[in-house]
Amino acid sequence: MKVELISIGDELLIGQTINTNASWLGQELALRGAKVTHCAVIMDTEVAIVEALDIALSRADVVIITGGLGPTKDDITKITLTKYFGTELEIDADVLKHVTSFFQSRGREMLEVNIQQAALPKSALVLNNALGTAPGMLFDIDGKTVMSVPGVPYEMKHVMSTSGFDYITDKYPTTDLFHRTIHLQGIGESFIADRISDIESGLLSNNIKLAYLPSPGIVRLRFTCQPNNQEEKLIDEAIEEVKKRLPKYYFSENEGDLSQVVGTILKRKSSFLGTVESCSGGQIANEIVRVSGSSDYFKGSLVSYSNELKVNLVKVTPSAINDFGAVSEEVVTQMAVNGRTILNVDYCISTSGVAGPTGGSPEKPVGTIWICVAGPNEVITKKCTFGEDRARNIKMTALTGLNMLRRMLLEINN
Amino acid sequence: MKVELISIGDELLIGQTINTNASWLGQELALRGAKVTHCAVIMDTEVAIVEALDIALSRADVVIITGGLGPTKDDITKITLTKYFGTELEIDADVLKHVTSFFQSRGREMLEVNIQQAALPKSALVLNNALGTAPGMLFDIDGKTVMSVPGVPYEMKHVMSTSGFDYITDKYPTTDLFHRTIHLQGIGESFIADRISDIESGLLSNNIKLAYLPSPGIVRLRFTCQPNNQEEKLIDEAIEEVKKRLPKYYFSENEGDLSQVVGTILKRKSSFLGTVESCSGGQIANEIVRVSGSSDYFKGSLVSYSNELKVNLVKVTPSAINDFGAVSEEVVTQMAVNGRTILNVDYCISTSGVAGPTGGSPEKPVGTIWICVAGPNEVITKKCTFGEDRARNIKMTALTGLNMLRRMLLEINN
Repeated sequence: MKVELISIGDELLIGQTINTNASWLGQELALRGAKVTHCAVIMDTEVAIVEALDIALSRADVVIITGGLGPTKDDITKITLTKYFGTELEIDADVLKHVTSFFQSRGREMLEVNIQQAALPKSALVLNNALGTAPGMLFDIDGKTVMSVPGVPYEMKHVMSTSGFDYITDKYPTTDLFHRTIHLQGIGESFIADRISDIESGLLSNNIKLAYLPSPGIVRLRFTCQPNNQEEKLIDEAIEEVKKRLPKYYFSENEGDLSQVVGTILKRKSSFLGTVESCSGGQIANEIVRVSGSSDYFKGSLVSYSNELKVNLVKVTPSAINDFGAVSEEVVTQMAVNGRTILNVDYCISTSGVAGPTGGSPEKPVGTIWICVAGPNEVITKKCTFGEDRARNIKMTALTGLNMLRRMLLEINN
Repeated sequence: MKVELISIGDELLIGQTINTNASWLGQELALRGAKVTHCAVIMDTEVAIVEALDIALSRADVVIITGGLGPTKDDITKITLTKYFGTELEIDADVLKHVTSFFQSRGREMLEVNIQQAALPKSALVLNNALGTAPGMLFDIDGKTVMSVPGVPYEMKHVMSTSGFDYITDKYPTTDLFHRTIHLQGIGESFIADRISDIESGLLSNNIKLAYLPSPGIVRLRFTCQPNNQEEKLIDEAIEEVKKRLPKYYFSENEGDLSQVVGTILKRKSSFLGTVESCSGGQIANEIVRVSGSSDYFKGSLVSYSNELKVNLVKVTPSAINDFGAVSEEVVTQMAVNGRTILNVDYCISTSGVAGPTGGSPEKPVGTIWICVAGPNEVITKKCTFGEDRARNIKMTALTGLNMLRRMLLEINN
């Protein structure tokens, strides 16, 4: 089965928006055994949409169009498709009900343009969009499928996950590839490759694909093979071996966040967590709270960005700041240790560093960051040397702190 | 002048790599008055390259191809282009010298495949690549230009910046498009469209394009026209009118974040900010700290996620929590007012709500969020009714809180 994507929007062509929709769809379809063979990014004009659709339908079985479904005048996908497939618009009662309740539940007035969002091409199947007012549409023509979904990423993902993908895999039976993806924190891809080169060679000689998918602070390893007991077993064994070799770095399988992994352990231990953050500015708290149910193990944080609050709120001794500087093992240790008491928690993560791009010095260049985890039995600290990029430094600090906590909780020392 | 992009690589189609090259090229070309009118992401096969090139050359003046220039077997762009343009490969002495010194200076052995990187199509102009071993190539055919550059982002940027862009703008005198982009917070695109429909109609009848670019909590409006004093003036006037009609929502032009806008005002006023966050879990602090130099106006935060910390740290009265619940105007007001004192700041933003997906009740469904801003002269509160999605609720809470603060700082009441 061949799938082609058409991403509509001038904002993509002039680079105001990066086309993350296409990469997400490519990933998700690959997991379902479908291959994206082409992606066209086009202007939001009728001519461009018609031309792209003609070409895509001449080659592919399934065409997924993203974007151009909003209520405003510059969104012309729906009207163009209606003409293209020789049908007409008609108010869909169910969609109108959904749009109406969408506005009512938010206490907002509904406009004529919003009512028009319930007007849909007669010949299209509606793909419901619980998260927004523009539903997706599906046209079935001569054994080929054209799907039009919103361009807003979380609405697009929702529509595809709740109905779009199922429709495709039902209509075009695929052989799902077998795959497992594991996550590692705190080790770069070339270092992983070096540590597991023998495992990788063994997999390659058995037609098993291993992909390294790096993002700041995290590397995902994806193992893929055709469905086949023997090869699947080889993947299972390889993953067990990677986990055994790299326990410091391996933290989860599939899409589990590090904050989720840590949360599950804390909950199991009936332990409570807090953070005292300086350079990470609440990012660790934020990562933890993103997980639903985190109130079961997370009490809160002190974001002591200024030295004034480090002293007054967190009770760091002024002499430690004077003698060693705010970015020091002494200060970060006091922050975590005092945090345990002030926040009344079992574990506390603290951070203090030079996130950059300014504030560096020869002794403490930009990217120098101290992290501490204080627990009931031990206190561990780590000095990190990240790079120049502020946002990346903050993200890496949060992930490193969470992984230090994970290792303390699981008593992993190497 | 029309430019089309062809991005080559299976890794882009299966979503292992996000196509940031295309968005960078789109931005840079727009700045130079050239418009990217189409981008095709294709597989690295000869058939796909030839087909994409045929189509692109039938429409565009300039085609920029990225990727597929590496030394390994799966990189076939160079050989395909050599065939396509009926020429042949020949070692380029200057490029060979560069490749040789590239390996020598890194103390690495040079392989036959690396020597072959200096073999280039006879009819092509070489675009030097000081940062790597694969140079760019430029073919000039019947007034049209085909450029092939490496896919590695920093090499591609280097080749384009040092020679590619100059070649294009020298050959095709461009007229820069005029465009302005403004940002609004707290109002959906359909409501903006409704409030400015007369302005929009006036622009459309003058060939001025207005695009709505929504993301959670923020809508960007992009106005574009051909360079022309009269039309540019119409855009300037339209933007002034939008700002006058929607001062509550308009917060910046170009790519300014709301946290940056608020930071600039605080700094100008020599005022200090803190936050006391429950449901937003440090997200507001995080947004503020992402801005470099935020220590000039941001002291820190209390993330009082648990009721225990709301009482013990933030000094919320237990009776307020018992009588009204943690998600209430009373509690959120005490949080912000007490936060001003505890954090010793002029302004304090506080949040308390049901981020979801669990924890909702008939009176306080998921998405019910109270936000308060306390300043030296006034205290304002707002009850928000967002949706079901936890991450989105947290993001919207942060943006709404920052915009409430902005309005208080600028004394905008409607």
